[in-house]
Amino acid sequence: METKRINDVIRFSDRLEKIPLFDSSRYFCDLYCLRPGQDQRIHSHAESDKIYYVLRGTGLFHIAGEERELGEGETVIARPGQEHGVRNTATSDLVLLVFMTPRP
Amino acid sequence: METKRINDVIRFSDRLEKIPLFDSSRYFCDLYCLRPGQDQRIHSHAESDKIYYVLRGTGLFHIAGEERELGEGETVIARPGQEHGVRNTATSDLVLLVFMTPRP
Repeated sequence: METKRINDVIRFSDRLEKIPLFDSSRYFCDLYCLRPGQDQRIHSHAESDKIYYVLRGTGLFHIAGEERELGEGETVIARPGQEHGVRNTATSDLVLLVFMTPRP
Repeated sequence: METKRINDVIRFSDRLEKIPLFDSSRYFCDLYCLRPGQDQRIHSHAESDKIYYVLRGTGLFHIAGEERELGEGETVIARPGQEHGVRNTATSDLVLLVFMTPRP
């Protein structure tokens, strides 16, 4: 059985750390781990949806020109072509579960 | 910004409750809410991957003939054609974040 325990795979580095959980030719399912101050810079994908789910901490999300702080138990989507990014503006670590399909 | 707060959308009924979070023509992203004793019966999809992430509680997962109990912070995948199902065998509610692509 292909299982992962999040606590076993979380790791941080000197920039946003992306940890692959599962994927196929169609999608990515990753963990994003951000120390305070780290970010995923604003970018977009012409055809992909990206869903962020906040597992731990609080992040300042930017989606299509709007910014909002989201915490544990909140989820947000960037639709195709929408600019999106996230910054850990809090004092604790930020861990996100991220699905993206199709692969860009 | 398209956001959802899990605590605002969780609900239970007399059987497995599937709550759509986001979707497109390519995928489903749902919450599955199961009271103790409730289950998703074993089934399979010829072409789809299904990823379960345990947000709350503990479930007995069946994937391709293997059974394992998974709790909060654990994730598991059913690959195309693999039989899969889950039962809440615990005494507390089970809440799963589920991502499936492509749509069957």
